[in-house]
Amino acid sequence: MNVAIMGFGVVGSGVAEVLKNNAAVIEKKCGVSLRLSHILDIRTFPGSPFAPYMTRDVNDILNDADTDIVVETMGGTEPAFTFVSACLNAGKHVVTSNKELVAKKGYQLLELAKKNGVNFFFEAAVGGGIPIIRPLSRCLAGNNITRVAGILNGTTNFILTKMIVEQMDFAAALRLAQQNGYAEKDPTADVEGIDACRKICILASLAFGSHVYPDGIFTEGISALTLDDVAAAEALGCVIKLIAQTRRLENGKISVLVSPALIKKTHLLSGISDVFNACLITGDAVGDVIMVGRGAGKEATASAVVGDIIDCVDHSSARKTFGWGDAVPGLVEDIDAVPAAFLVRAETSGKDSDTAALAAALPGCTMLDSDGSTLLFVTPSLPQGKIKAALNAASLRVRSMLRFFEES
Amino acid sequence: MNVAIMGFGVVGSGVAEVLKNNAAVIEKKCGVSLRLSHILDIRTFPGSPFAPYMTRDVNDILNDADTDIVVETMGGTEPAFTFVSACLNAGKHVVTSNKELVAKKGYQLLELAKKNGVNFFFEAAVGGGIPIIRPLSRCLAGNNITRVAGILNGTTNFILTKMIVEQMDFAAALRLAQQNGYAEKDPTADVEGIDACRKICILASLAFGSHVYPDGIFTEGISALTLDDVAAAEALGCVIKLIAQTRRLENGKISVLVSPALIKKTHLLSGISDVFNACLITGDAVGDVIMVGRGAGKEATASAVVGDIIDCVDHSSARKTFGWGDAVPGLVEDIDAVPAAFLVRAETSGKDSDTAALAAALPGCTMLDSDGSTLLFVTPSLPQGKIKAALNAASLRVRSMLRFFEES
Repeated sequence: MNVAIMGFGVVGSGVAEVLKNNAAVIEKKCGVSLRLSHILDIRTFPGSPFAPYMTRDVNDILNDADTDIVVETMGGTEPAFTFVSACLNAGKHVVTSNKELVAKKGYQLLELAKKNGVNFFFEAAVGGGIPIIRPLSRCLAGNNITRVAGILNGTTNFILTKMIVEQMDFAAALRLAQQNGYAEKDPTADVEGIDACRKICILASLAFGSHVYPDGIFTEGISALTLDDVAAAEALGCVIKLIAQTRRLENGKISVLVSPALIKKTHLLSGISDVFNACLITGDAVGDVIMVGRGAGKEATASAVVGDIIDCVDHSSARKTFGWGDAVPGLVEDIDAVPAAFLVRAETSGKDSDTAALAAALPGCTMLDSDGSTLLFVTPSLPQGKIKAALNAASLRVRSMLRFFEES
Repeated sequence: MNVAIMGFGVVGSGVAEVLKNNAAVIEKKCGVSLRLSHILDIRTFPGSPFAPYMTRDVNDILNDADTDIVVETMGGTEPAFTFVSACLNAGKHVVTSNKELVAKKGYQLLELAKKNGVNFFFEAAVGGGIPIIRPLSRCLAGNNITRVAGILNGTTNFILTKMIVEQMDFAAALRLAQQNGYAEKDPTADVEGIDACRKICILASLAFGSHVYPDGIFTEGISALTLDDVAAAEALGCVIKLIAQTRRLENGKISVLVSPALIKKTHLLSGISDVFNACLITGDAVGDVIMVGRGAGKEATASAVVGDIIDCVDHSSARKTFGWGDAVPGLVEDIDAVPAAFLVRAETSGKDSDTAALAAALPGCTMLDSDGSTLLFVTPSLPQGKIKAALNAASLRVRSMLRFFEES
């Protein structure tokens, strides 16, 4: 069977190499040999062993009746969306690692795949090489999924690990991540939680069966975190991780959010360090299941793409039942109505009056530190909007608010 | 589609309940509704809501043309093997949670399934509800798998956790496990590593493509472990876990073994406590991936069975490519040729002469304690047979030998 690759960047070239280097094991697993047919890229790669496959014209792929499977590793929404749509309409299976494309256009592309009787798979879009999509959609299919929560961005986890373990401040840790190639020159999508948001939207769509779009999802990054926050977490026996999470709420809606969160050191997620990712899935039958591994990197991500290619081969005649439905307006609960407990740091000039005002506006807080110019306290678990309103009513100058991760 | 269950014990009744309670989510995931048709058991269950489905005659299932999928949760080799074979020959898909059956008869049953164009799935046989079989066989299919290692038995992990955290001795921890329903009255299969051995044989078969039978696999349980061992591990910054592992060796053979092992506290597997299981898979492309969850229990195991049932529905017309080949004689390396470093405790009466004899017979050991009547030392990593021969040559009275877990 013939496979074309669109986008010869880090992941695309990794896919080409895994297909070549592991040809024997792949043929053994899927019963047919996979041959590379075309690689689409606007750049040229003279001297590359893959140079003979290169093309700049997507029609070379679309019009090649012998190319059954197309891998999209271009990234971004366009022209990826146009090209992937054309491939699906041409009756080709598509495998992508492009989380932005799936988060923004997943439902449309899944419908297009269904209409054309082909598969559209994207295991590599979340957690790199860690199996998450297939376990969630298939192994745990007998469960009512109640929650998905994870450390889904390796760059921020590396930065936080440096802040926690080596007391580096955010700026220094970011520079180190950039030097190591873990962070881009413009690190916004990683450090502001945008990348993690796309991934949790994909997982929420799969877990709850309706497309969840990233627009409007509460997304807080790690760029405002300080070593004071790290120390306050430590004093509570916690570490700070960037957690992307979604949960079925009692009112039937779902919460979807990305934010730094305080995790007790006794919880397994607290031990996921450096560029590693982890995804916790809770189902009513299975309880908690956690998958851990490298969430990015050329070979790891390529590994997931190749797993999907093999699944396409196995479902080349009978399409696999996989996907989700259209977005349901109002399904995602307003962040202000989502309950959580917070660690709050506020400035104070008159601590007695401020603590009295806090006690009146928000009963049940636990004061950790009221020395000097700072109040440090833990709130009860309440809808976030109520907590913010109470802190406002108490006229506190809030410096930081850190959500506690709910273990169950 | 109709589903029959053979064996209405803990797992079988859990499957019936999950099918009933989660009918809506299952129908949404697999596109068809699943109806229970028969439950085979020699016992009667008067008053059970499932009483109308009960039968004592396997022919009621075999002759029912409307029953497409059969779940086997009887346990043991017979009559499970006879019944499962008959179901496959009758053109029915079979899903089992029976690790003994798969470890001992997997190749035969997979061949029978292939011959009859049906599926034989067993996600629940390893790690209960934790997705392991499908990720290993499908998501990581593009990898050359180099190692699988795991905490695959919850009973022994519970006992070891009590020994490590609460300093209970083995006998007391076993009694507590029995009181909590985690250990059987006859705990042999769990505490002597037999259960873990069956599971690692299944994973080795899948990872390396040839059936690995449990007979002759080196299997060491935890019943001989003492609180002295736990303390010695602690002094080295380690904990003791029962590890089942298989690895591709440099000579092309594979190692397969079950034994207690010393794991550094910095490694994620060291933090897997109580009845939780974890499975570490290493692939040449993906690196290390770890799956964690409850490895047993009614609902968790039923969850995995139902996931497999849904996969059968999706592959009811076109059989899924899945399985392994016949056993390859000589594939499993002799345990004496498998290298490892050990923590050794030996009795001594003359410590100077004994340490001199040790240094002569086994150079490169690190002495940790040579006070009193005990020598405690760490060996270099060498083939196990060479280490045993050297300890023998040094005439040491070895009291215990604990293998170090190799992190990579």
